[in-house]
Amino acid sequence: MLEKRKPLPVKLAIEEVMKYSTIGECEKISIHDSIDRFLAEDLVADHPVPPFDRSPYDGFAIRSKDTKLASAENPVELEVIDEIGAGSVSEHSLSENQAVRIMTGAQMPSGSDAVVMLELSKVINKSGTTYMTLKRSFKEGDNVSFRGEDTQEGSVLVKKGTKITPGIIALLATFGYELVTVSKKPKVGIIATGSELLDVGEQLAPGKIRNSNSYMVEAQVKRSGAEPLYLGKLPDDLESCFQAVKHSLDKVDYLITTGGVSVGDFDYLPEIYKKLGANVLFNKIAMRPGSVTTVAEIDGKLLFGLSGNPSACYVGFELLVRPIVRHFLRSKRPHLQMVKAELEKDFLKPNPFTRFVRGKLEFSDGKVKASPVGLDKSNVVTSLAEADSLITLPGGTRGYQAGDKVDVLLIDDQTGSDKPWAESFK
Amino acid sequence: MLEKRKPLPVKLAIEEVMKYSTIGECEKISIHDSIDRFLAEDLVADHPVPPFDRSPYDGFAIRSKDTKLASAENPVELEVIDEIGAGSVSEHSLSENQAVRIMTGAQMPSGSDAVVMLELSKVINKSGTTYMTLKRSFKEGDNVSFRGEDTQEGSVLVKKGTKITPGIIALLATFGYELVTVSKKPKVGIIATGSELLDVGEQLAPGKIRNSNSYMVEAQVKRSGAEPLYLGKLPDDLESCFQAVKHSLDKVDYLITTGGVSVGDFDYLPEIYKKLGANVLFNKIAMRPGSVTTVAEIDGKLLFGLSGNPSACYVGFELLVRPIVRHFLRSKRPHLQMVKAELEKDFLKPNPFTRFVRGKLEFSDGKVKASPVGLDKSNVVTSLAEADSLITLPGGTRGYQAGDKVDVLLIDDQTGSDKPWAESFK
Repeated sequence: MLEKRKPLPVKLAIEEVMKYSTIGECEKISIHDSIDRFLAEDLVADHPVPPFDRSPYDGFAIRSKDTKLASAENPVELEVIDEIGAGSVSEHSLSENQAVRIMTGAQMPSGSDAVVMLELSKVINKSGTTYMTLKRSFKEGDNVSFRGEDTQEGSVLVKKGTKITPGIIALLATFGYELVTVSKKPKVGIIATGSELLDVGEQLAPGKIRNSNSYMVEAQVKRSGAEPLYLGKLPDDLESCFQAVKHSLDKVDYLITTGGVSVGDFDYLPEIYKKLGANVLFNKIAMRPGSVTTVAEIDGKLLFGLSGNPSACYVGFELLVRPIVRHFLRSKRPHLQMVKAELEKDFLKPNPFTRFVRGKLEFSDGKVKASPVGLDKSNVVTSLAEADSLITLPGGTRGYQAGDKVDVLLIDDQTGSDKPWAESFK
Repeated sequence: MLEKRKPLPVKLAIEEVMKYSTIGECEKISIHDSIDRFLAEDLVADHPVPPFDRSPYDGFAIRSKDTKLASAENPVELEVIDEIGAGSVSEHSLSENQAVRIMTGAQMPSGSDAVVMLELSKVINKSGTTYMTLKRSFKEGDNVSFRGEDTQEGSVLVKKGTKITPGIIALLATFGYELVTVSKKPKVGIIATGSELLDVGEQLAPGKIRNSNSYMVEAQVKRSGAEPLYLGKLPDDLESCFQAVKHSLDKVDYLITTGGVSVGDFDYLPEIYKKLGANVLFNKIAMRPGSVTTVAEIDGKLLFGLSGNPSACYVGFELLVRPIVRHFLRSKRPHLQMVKAELEKDFLKPNPFTRFVRGKLEFSDGKVKASPVGLDKSNVVTSLAEADSLITLPGGTRGYQAGDKVDVLLIDDQTGSDKPWAESFK
């Protein structure tokens, strides 16, 4: 009745899963829809920036040599022969002692080599002709933004695998990406198991609780960058669970089940993996919560057997499923970033296994601090609402006290990590 | 020709805008669509958690008093009279020396008051009857999760105005929120002005650049939680710009224009505000980039005149528009969070005005560090792609050196701030 399972260290479990990671296909989408998607191709400059020598100010384009002798005592007078707004190009070429009124962003007229800011010149009108006067000299190139000084044509500006932000969208627009090549979202199926589960719209009944895992995991799938496919909620019945898993496999890239992975009499996932002929990568991880988290593989397709306990389910997703999704999306940093923080409150429980404590980060005078939120009983969900991090306490350690340095995984951060674990983490 | 403008300190400019903040209406949406929306009502527990006394482990529900004398030398033997999975309720009540096999999450049977974990008991079978033996005593309440010990019925678990995360969705599901009451997204109109602007799909031409601001701002609008409405790109022509602004006003909650707010001859926004009879809150802010950022108001509706320079436009949005959107969505912390960080590289330019330097955060050994990204010339866009923060250097300061403590606004963080500025910021 009681199966003996060998717990795998968390880092090894993640590495085991990553052996089955794959990279998804590409698709072209409108730039308007591209926020939060992942670039499938490097973003390359199709032209230099600035594309032409231009004025960064409102003022006058001049020939610097005409100003060589200018001073307060000896102001120089230049004839204003044209006026150009941004987007226009002057048809005139500057000759000796001529200037062109120029607006911010406009192309430098032929013959000019410097810009005088509007504030530094005086404009006068003499019998229908406009002149500007200058009381100082300018050097060649003064106040000119030169072609290509920001970016050379052909430069790689953003690497594929990067999540698209508003700043990246500015670049995509600048370089003419009306259509953006992004990674297709992997489809992640979700099946909840458990006879105790009611639907969210159902009234509570004795012994029953509402299914929260499917909704939570659906949102985690979206946050990770994938597309969820909710495949239903099943009672603890071997045959119906087996059929559901079997028939879901060809509809999705990855399949998540919640519940049924423990060693209880109604935990049918181990039996289902056996019936499917799936290769079980591991069925126990040396971590709390979520030690029963199981991952199996069939024909290269991963089946994530997450715990039915909401906190364990949450942690299992972020540690194991998120990096698989991000790798599919070509991210080079698919794992959660781990940083050092100062513990704000005592956490005195010993940690036989590596423990993930839901935490809230705070920044105080240049330091990163982390507080455990809620009681962290493995069956409470309330603390998940507040958590933005997982305080990670190594297995085999005793309690921690406020002020201790701890390792923290950042859930909301997009920097990520190329390794599943910080070097510093024991 | 040259208008004199009085620059307003950044903090005062933000406070001036916030005087016109309003709160949006509510709408009910499916829990499936609720991620990243903002709660318009407090999330309240509709039942205690756990909803009944339950077992947190797989094991046996027992009466503690039957185990009082149990020890290694004197094991106690209890008859197993029933087996209950999660979701089932036992019809039996425990009498003396009886136990019920119970699964994780199942309701405690009547008469039981403690749970023995499966690993701590031995099961034997004697002529068709199952017994379990115990070698230690248990106290009343051992290994029982009591009704309401996590959450009392009626508790407020998450405050309105909070952005909905996967963890909050777990709570919404647990407490039966099949429909979630969220704040309606404000509609933010976007008009780009500038004769130099090409559409993203157009070929470059002399003197022209592609319009990147509209796409960037559209994405910033989405990231802030609002709904963008792109209203087109206009040449620098007073009458057509005036008509476009005028006719857009009743289609949106807020209107953003980019460009045309400077003091150049083709900067028509000041004239448009005058023609509309709008109240200009300010037309100069003591900041770089974006000093020409202008905000006006007509019949309580805000018109944001952001700079046509992409970096200035980006900063103006995050400082002025984002908090207005978040306040509309009922956030109590609508502003960007400002934290202290250690500057990683020299930034030697003096800062006549408050300067916002695009930065990238790094966490190193428990400390927050910030590096300026790109050259930070006010006309470059490439650095926007990398930035996740704005290093904020007070006006009137000289250059900063690596190692100096600086204030940093976090762009990607969701914690936010109730004040537009940190106390520490001069």
